[in-house]
Amino acid sequence: MTKLLITGSGGRMGQALIEAGNLDAETEVTATHDKGEDLAAAFSDVNAAIDFTMHSFTKQVLEQALATNTPLVIGTTGHSDEEKAAIVEASKTLPIVFAANYSIGVNTLFWLTSKAAQILGNDRFDIEVTEMHHRHKIDAPSGTARRLLEILNEETGTSYEDDVAHGRVGNIGARPKREIGMHTLRGGDVVGDHTVMFAADGERVELTHKASSRMTFASGAVRAAVWLQDQPAGLYDMQDVLGLKG
Amino acid sequence: MTKLLITGSGGRMGQALIEAGNLDAETEVTATHDKGEDLAAAFSDVNAAIDFTMHSFTKQVLEQALATNTPLVIGTTGHSDEEKAAIVEASKTLPIVFAANYSIGVNTLFWLTSKAAQILGNDRFDIEVTEMHHRHKIDAPSGTARRLLEILNEETGTSYEDDVAHGRVGNIGARPKREIGMHTLRGGDVVGDHTVMFAADGERVELTHKASSRMTFASGAVRAAVWLQDQPAGLYDMQDVLGLKG
Amino acid sequence: MTKLLITGSGGRMGQALIEAGNLDAETEVTATHDKGEDLAAAFSDVNAAIDFTMHSFTKQVLEQALATNTPLVIGTTGHSDEEKAAIVEASKTLPIVFAANYSIGVNTLFWLTSKAAQILGNDRFDIEVTEMHHRHKIDAPSGTARRLLEILNEETGTSYEDDVAHGRVGNIGARPKREIGMHTLRGGDVVGDHTVMFAADGERVELTHKASSRMTFASGAVRAAVWLQDQPAGLYDMQDVLGLKG
Amino acid sequence: MTKLLITGSGGRMGQALIEAGNLDAETEVTATHDKGEDLAAAFSDVNAAIDFTMHSFTKQVLEQALATNTPLVIGTTGHSDEEKAAIVEASKTLPIVFAANYSIGVNTLFWLTSKAAQILGNDRFDIEVTEMHHRHKIDAPSGTARRLLEILNEETGTSYEDDVAHGRVGNIGARPKREIGMHTLRGGDVVGDHTVMFAADGERVELTHKASSRMTFASGAVRAAVWLQDQPAGLYDMQDVLGLKG
Repeated sequence: MTKLLITGSGGRMGQALIEAGNLDAETEVTATHDKGEDLAAAFSDVNAAIDFTMHSFTKQVLEQALATNTPLVIGTTGHSDEEKAAIVEASKTLPIVFAANYSIGVNTLFWLTSKAAQILGNDRFDIEVTEMHHRHKIDAPSGTARRLLEILNEETGTSYEDDVAHGRVGNIGARPKREIGMHTLRGGDVVGDHTVMFAADGERVELTHKASSRMTFASGAVRAAVWLQDQPAGLYDMQDVLGLKG
Repeated sequence: MTKLLITGSGGRMGQALIEAGNLDAETEVTATHDKGEDLAAAFSDVNAAIDFTMHSFTKQVLEQALATNTPLVIGTTGHSDEEKAAIVEASKTLPIVFAANYSIGVNTLFWLTSKAAQILGNDRFDIEVTEMHHRHKIDAPSGTARRLLEILNEETGTSYEDDVAHGRVGNIGARPKREIGMHTLRGGDVVGDHTVMFAADGERVELTHKASSRMTFASGAVRAAVWLQDQPAGLYDMQDVLGLKG
Repeated sequence: MTKLLITGSGGRMGQALIEAGNLDAETEVTATHDKGEDLAAAFSDVNAAIDFTMHSFTKQVLEQALATNTPLVIGTTGHSDEEKAAIVEASKTLPIVFAANYSIGVNTLFWLTSKAAQILGNDRFDIEVTEMHHRHKIDAPSGTARRLLEILNEETGTSYEDDVAHGRVGNIGARPKREIGMHTLRGGDVVGDHTVMFAADGERVELTHKASSRMTFASGAVRAAVWLQDQPAGLYDMQDVLGLKG
Repeated sequence: MTKLLITGSGGRMGQALIEAGNLDAETEVTATHDKGEDLAAAFSDVNAAIDFTMHSFTKQVLEQALATNTPLVIGTTGHSDEEKAAIVEASKTLPIVFAANYSIGVNTLFWLTSKAAQILGNDRFDIEVTEMHHRHKIDAPSGTARRLLEILNEETGTSYEDDVAHGRVGNIGARPKREIGMHTLRGGDVVGDHTVMFAADGERVELTHKASSRMTFASGAVRAAVWLQDQPAGLYDMQDVLGLKG
C-alpha cells in the first residue's frame, strides 16, 4: 500500500486527488496539507507526494521531498525558468513525474496520434484537429490541442507557424496538403473534448478524447505516484508512466 | 404519374436526377435534354421540368416553360440580377421552385435550427456551428453554413459581421454570450457535414446533417416537382415544398 | 423575485437545486427542508416549492402546498396509482408541474424529434436511437430513450412491441422500413447521451442531447417554478413550461 | 511503373479498381478481364493482378498467376476450405496479399484498437463498439466489427461467446467489467462506420473509421499491389503491407 501526501487539500483539485487516492486499491491518503499548515510534518511518513497547487509552491515542496527522499508528482504548470531548473536539479537525486496533462486517456491520445500520423501521413490524408472547452477558458487553442499539433508537426514535417490554419473564411482556395486545420470551440461547461481527424478520398479516421471531470487527472496522478515507487532518480512524464516510450 | 424532363442529362447531376426520377413511385423521366439538342421538343409533353445545369441556361428554360405552361424546378445558383428578375417575372404565371439547397434533410435542419434557437436562446446556451467539406471546396464557410448563421442571427438578434467568430487563437478571453463560433473543416472527399451546437451548463443539444451523395439533392428536386403539380403560379422554396412555413 | 423552498436540502440533488435557485436572477432560495425538520414552517413564506426527494414524500408535500396555496414542482418518479391520484386531485386547486425529465435540452429534444419525424417520416428515412449512461445504471433503455421511442412510435404509426429492435445479431436480412433500432451503451460515468438518427439514401439527420451534470435538471426545475407563478390551477409538464404545446 | 491487371472490369468494384490504379502515380492499368474473355492473355504482360470478383474464380486466377509468376492481390471472401488451401499452396512460390479488408484506414483502426486496449485495459475502462451500415446489409455485426471484437477479446482475455453483449433491454443490472457492448445500426446507404469506445470515470477515448466509398478499398488494394513487387513468396495481409507487424 502506497502512502500518499496530497497538498492543497482544501481546493477542488486537492479534494479530487484525495478521492482518487482513497479509491485506488494500491494507495491510501495518509497525509494532507493546506495553507498555513506544517509542510515538513506532512512529509514525515509517506511514500509519495502529489502537488497540484501553484507553481510558486514547487520550491518548498521540492525542499521537503529532498529532505525526506520522497518521490514527487508535480501537476502545476506555468513555472519560471528558475523553478524549472530547480525541478531538473532535484530529479538528479529523486524520481519525479512532471507532466502537462495527467489524464491516462489524453496521454493515450497523444501516443495514438503520433502512430496514426506515421501510418497515414499527410499525402493522401488531410489532418484537422478540433477541441471544445467551457466558456470561461481564455486561451485558444488548449494546451492539449497545442501538444497534439506539435506531435502532428513532428510526424509530418510541418510547422505551427506555416501550416496550422486557425479558422477559415472567404475565398480560401483548394486545401494545401501540408495544412492542418485547428478548430477551437467554446461553450457551456465542457471539461475538454479533443479530436484528431485524418480524411482521405473514401474514408476518415478519427481519434477522440472527452474529459468529463477532474477525476481524470486525479486518477492519472495517483497512477503516476504508484509507478514512481520502483523508479530510480530521474525526470519522467506520463508517457514513461504508461510505458509508451521506446 | 408525373412525367419529368431532366436537362443536362449528360452530366453527373443530370444522371442523378434521372435515377431519382425513375426511382420515385410517383414520377417517370419521359424526356431528357443535353447540349446541342432541341429544347422545345424536350418540353413538348411533360408535367414538370428540372434544371440543374448553369444559371446562364435559365432564360432559355423559362422561355420554353412559359410557352408550354410547364411547372419548373430551378437548381442552379449564381444568377445575375437580370436572370433573377426573369425568374420572378415568370413565376407570376407559372409555379416555380427556386431553392439554394434541395436536400430534404438540409431544409429540415434549417427549420429545426430556427425552432431550437427560439426555445433555447443564446442567454443560457452558447451557439457553435461546424461544417466539413472535401479538400477542393474553395469558399468558406459553405453556403449551407452561411444560411444556418443567417437563421441563428435572426433568431438571436445577432449579426454576421459583429458576432460570428471564424476561428479562435491566442488570448481570447471569456466567451461573449452573443458570439457564434463558426468552424470550417476541409478534407478528403466529404460531401457535406453540418452541425449546430447549443451548449449550456450541464447540457448540449446538437443538430447534425450529413450528406453522402448528390442523390440527396436529386431526391429533393423530384419531390419538389411532384409537389408543384397542385400549386398555383408563384415562386416557392423547399420550406414551402416540405410544408414548413406559417 | 420568486422565493423558493427546496426539500431534501442535504442530498446531492437538493444541493444542486439550491445552487440553481441562487444562480437564477429571478429566484432566491429562502427556505430549505431536510429529514426531521418542520415541513409546515418551511412552507410558511415562499412563492413556489420544488421537491426531488422520494415519491413517498409527495403526499406530505401536497398537503402543505394546499394549506398554503403554494405552486409546486414535483421531480420524483415511481409514484403509486394512489399517489398519482393525489397529485391530480391537488392540481384542481393548485398549479403543479409534474415532469419525468426537467432538462430544458431533453424536452427540446423530445419536441424536435416529434417534428423531425413528422417531416421526414419512416418511408425514405430509417430511424435509429442510441443512448449511453454510466456503468451503474441498471435498466435499459433509459426512461428518456423510452419516451423518445414513444414519440417516434406515435408519429410513424409503429409500436414498441412490434417494431423496436434492441440489438441485432446473426443473419438479420434487409432492414424493415418500420423498424426502429434502439442501442443502449453503458460505460464510465456518462451522465446521459441520447441521439435520434434519420438515415436515407444520400443523407442523415441526427438530433443529440448530452447531459454532463445534474445542474441540467436543477436549472429546468427552477425555470418551471418561475413559470408557475403566473399559471392557473392545473397539471403541467415541461412542454407547457417551454411553450412547446399547441 | 507497376503494370496492373484488374479482373471483373465490368462490375462496380472493378471500375473502382481501374480508377484507383490509374490515379496512383506508381501504377497503370494495362490489362483488364471480364466474363467470357481470355484470362491467359490478360495475364501475359503485367507486374501484379488484383481480383475482387467471386471466391469461385480464385482457382482460375491462381493458375494463371502461377503460370506467369505474377504477384496477386485477392479481395474476395467466403472461400471454401479447398479454395483456401489452394491459396496457401500458391503462396509458397508466389507473393500473395489476401486480406478481409483492404482499407488503409480500417487496418489502421485494427492496429490502434489493439494498442489502445493494451494501454487502457478493461479494468478501469469499459469497452463498447458501434457500427453502422446501409439498410441492405443482411448480417450483423459486420465482418469488420467482428474483427474488432476478436482484437479486443484477445487483448483483454475475454471471449465473443461469454462477454460480448449484442443489445441491452430490461433490468440488466450494473455493467460487468468484462462485458463488451456491440451495437449494430442499419439505415440509409451508409457505406460503413465503426467506433471503438473506452469509457472510464471522468473520460472517454474513441477510435472511429468512416468509409464513404469503395475507393477506400480500391486504393488499399492498389497500394498492396505496389508493395508486393518487392516481396518474396508468401501469404500477406494488410498489416504486412502497412508495416504494422512485429
